[in-house]
Amino acid sequence: NPKFQKIFKKVDELKPDFIQVLAEAVEIPAVSADESLRPMVIKKAHFLVDKLKQLGFEDIQLKELGVQPPPVNDPKLQLPPVVLSRYGNDPSKKTVLVYGHYDVQPASIEDGWDSEPFKLVVDEEKQLLKARGSTDDTGPLTGWLHVVRAHQEAGIELPVNLLTCFEGMEESGSLGLEKLIGQEADKYFKDVDAVCISDNYWLGTKKPVLTYGLRGCNYYQVTINGPGADLHSGIFGGVIAEPMVDLVQVLSSLVDSKGKILIKGIDEMVAPVTEKEMKLYEDIDFSLEELEEASGSKTALYEKKEDILMHRWRFPSLSVHGVEGAFSSQGAKTVIPAKVSGKFSIRTVPDMDSAKLTKLVIDHCNSVFEKLGSPNTIHAELIHDGNYWVSDPFNAQFTAAAKATKEVYGVDPDFTREGGSIPITLTFEEQLKTSVLLLPMGRGDDGAHSINEKLDISNFIGGIKTMVAYLHYYAESPEN
Amino acid sequence: NPKFQKIFKKVDELKPDFIQVLAEAVEIPAVSADESLRPMVIKKAHFLVDKLKQLGFEDIQLKELGVQPPPVNDPKLQLPPVVLSRYGNDPSKKTVLVYGHYDVQPASIEDGWDSEPFKLVVDEEKQLLKARGSTDDTGPLTGWLHVVRAHQEAGIELPVNLLTCFEGMEESGSLGLEKLIGQEADKYFKDVDAVCISDNYWLGTKKPVLTYGLRGCNYYQVTINGPGADLHSGIFGGVIAEPMVDLVQVLSSLVDSKGKILIKGIDEMVAPVTEKEMKLYEDIDFSLEELEEASGSKTALYEKKEDILMHRWRFPSLSVHGVEGAFSSQGAKTVIPAKVSGKFSIRTVPDMDSAKLTKLVIDHCNSVFEKLGSPNTIHAELIHDGNYWVSDPFNAQFTAAAKATKEVYGVDPDFTREGGSIPITLTFEEQLKTSVLLLPMGRGDDGAHSINEKLDISNFIGGIKTMVAYLHYYAESPEN
Ligand SMILES: [Zn+2]
Ligand SMILES: [Zn+2]
Ligand SMILES: [Zn+2]
Ligand SMILES: [Zn+2]
Repeated sequence: NPKFQKIFKKVDELKPDFIQVLAEAVEIPAVSADESLRPMVIKKAHFLVDKLKQLGFEDIQLKELGVQPPPVNDPKLQLPPVVLSRYGNDPSKKTVLVYGHYDVQPASIEDGWDSEPFKLVVDEEKQLLKARGSTDDTGPLTGWLHVVRAHQEAGIELPVNLLTCFEGMEESGSLGLEKLIGQEADKYFKDVDAVCISDNYWLGTKKPVLTYGLRGCNYYQVTINGPGADLHSGIFGGVIAEPMVDLVQVLSSLVDSKGKILIKGIDEMVAPVTEKEMKLYEDIDFSLEELEEASGSKTALYEKKEDILMHRWRFPSLSVHGVEGAFSSQGAKTVIPAKVSGKFSIRTVPDMDSAKLTKLVIDHCNSVFEKLGSPNTIHAELIHDGNYWVSDPFNAQFTAAAKATKEVYGVDPDFTREGGSIPITLTFEEQLKTSVLLLPMGRGDDGAHSINEKLDISNFIGGIKTMVAYLHYYAESPEN
Repeated sequence: NPKFQKIFKKVDELKPDFIQVLAEAVEIPAVSADESLRPMVIKKAHFLVDKLKQLGFEDIQLKELGVQPPPVNDPKLQLPPVVLSRYGNDPSKKTVLVYGHYDVQPASIEDGWDSEPFKLVVDEEKQLLKARGSTDDTGPLTGWLHVVRAHQEAGIELPVNLLTCFEGMEESGSLGLEKLIGQEADKYFKDVDAVCISDNYWLGTKKPVLTYGLRGCNYYQVTINGPGADLHSGIFGGVIAEPMVDLVQVLSSLVDSKGKILIKGIDEMVAPVTEKEMKLYEDIDFSLEELEEASGSKTALYEKKEDILMHRWRFPSLSVHGVEGAFSSQGAKTVIPAKVSGKFSIRTVPDMDSAKLTKLVIDHCNSVFEKLGSPNTIHAELIHDGNYWVSDPFNAQFTAAAKATKEVYGVDPDFTREGGSIPITLTFEEQLKTSVLLLPMGRGDDGAHSINEKLDISNFIGGIKTMVAYLHYYAESPEN
């Protein structure tokens, strides 16, 4: 295909420029979970607006979402804006809405990064780009801008009208976005034929994938409240009920070391595995070794490929993330923390009902706490939830993306689900009544949400090319 | 006593000066647990040297203790120096060594302080001094300097030779001090007749006390090591053994919510309560209400005064302080932490043997972990330990201090023990073969180690006067 060759050549030529844009973008520490960094999140939105303007995007709107609901320290904290924009307005073309998020997870060099997390390192030897946001999700998000640039420089018309919806709160529950999508469904988004989200990863490190399912995520916080202030363990140890002691009892009752969730009633909500479904898992290219490589350890809970994939994609899991309010630094502080909040989340799958799950979880925590007979008080609550999602992997979009993948990487993609959640996927599908495609750019070992997050240069460039080819194949497809 | 009246009047007149010195001292954030603040700890040592010089102390020596042993981030990290100095060198006088520490606990306004922790707030309404270090231990430490100043301004000779031993690592295990005391026992400290430590608190808020016993403290860290880096719980939740899940199981096996230690073999090491001992507790001025007021809550584990005091002073306790390496901020980070360290400590009492206790603790942790069947690894270790201490409350020093207390406060002090540990007490007693007196300045509700640490102005001034009178009564006492 000479059209693709021409654009792909431009993508290759523009590689240094594309990396430079990524470097500028990740330098802005847009951590949505850190209230003090909120101005940086907003700064990054304006950075994107500038880039969109330069490329000739039109009708650029910064949609304000109002103040962030509690719990917050600053009751007037503004949510970061959603960046809407449009490239092309040809009624004869299909309209594709691309979604990405410009906020990132927290990161600090003290966490163990080899380099400053908010400074892009171009590792020429390993051919990778290292920084917080490189793969999640600044790299893929800016990829869509590079798609337009490559078309422009190659002198080839974009085959679709492209809309952007870039948000700044994804890592903190996409607060306000669902409402905005509902409001814009018949306005800004009214002509959208398809939605494409590039915010997940290949299953492994070699084979490209397209993703048709996601687990949901219900995030909980259980707070134990005791003394009026932190106390000295010498003076109060042994005579005061310690919130941290109660908390570890509650946290230890949630899941065992084999990954089995101990909260009653959850297993019963999970859709049973069918024979046909079982078959699907057999074809996928994956192995225990890939999991071990991605996790950097031999600490897998299962050995068989099918067990691993099913426990990642179609069974719930419970993770304990940490404790807020307790001593958390190096050294030996002899404190009795006055108020501690345990954080844990449950990944959800068909047919779990979020509200019913939350009732089970909160009842469980309260019941375990009550049996302790502690004079402290407990408050278990849902911090945020996002539903699971499953799509049809044989529709027009997925078919176009499969052909695009084959064009760029020379292989058919695996059709996968994901263990992670992108709650907004379901919202787009329901509100815009369109198909949603998950088109990952990075690899399974990119380390999103962990230290030394990276994106391979070949995935960055290959991903941009795949986006290009996907838009063309989808534009040509007879169906919507 | 006209001599006391003259000096006490000077103390009252000099109050603004004394508060000013404290304000300057607490402004230096001398947090010994924070490696990055080590230069501040050292700066505070030099601040004290300047003050000692101004007052005419002689033979001022900054004793270097070498590099801090692992675990440290910086393998060349220097320990803060010990400040030795002498005021007076008259062989006909007794020699009193006073000990204090100029380092402080970590503090940050984000912890919930009403004001900047390293800025002294003089609350005129409540008549208190608020800052990290105000009561622990910068206030009492500088008190000794004010004792000398008051004598000078009153034109009255100090009745003893005064030696100082001010260290900068007390809040981090007094690393290096024990060795130094051993080395100086026959040198700098060779003429010492008595040691006085002002680094603890009244039992309650009204009655002055003298303290003749302390619990020890064995601080442990149990580390669970899993994946090579922090992981995304969406991608790895359910397929990887999570260190945090194992850790809460281990931490939940240590102590129950009623304060009962669950590690086998510990109860058997504790000296039984005698009838005579039981009697002692009956006389002490204390009530459940005071504990509730000091803790700012109704979360006491015992109702009876005797039970409370015995569980604070003569029974062991186990506190869970926190977790290093897990998510610890506000918000909802969906991370699987790769390596987490639980921190807990056991307060020790006669006749617990530290080494034997540590073996019990480590064996317990390993045994609980082994039963989990986790592919992760565990490492339980003692971070530091300090032995318990019990003295004779009727010796010359205690008698002098009791008379001094009566002189200043008009009441006989209660003779108490303490739940906290000042390991160096035992070292002084053993190495210098002298009696050690614990002469507290602050109150039980001062909030050492917690937010809004304070020292009542009346305790600051009353404490200085008590120090004055104690030196005179001890100087006059026939025995050593
Ligand atoms: Zn993302
Ligand atoms: Zn993310
Ligand atoms: Zn202290
Ligand atoms: Zn202290």
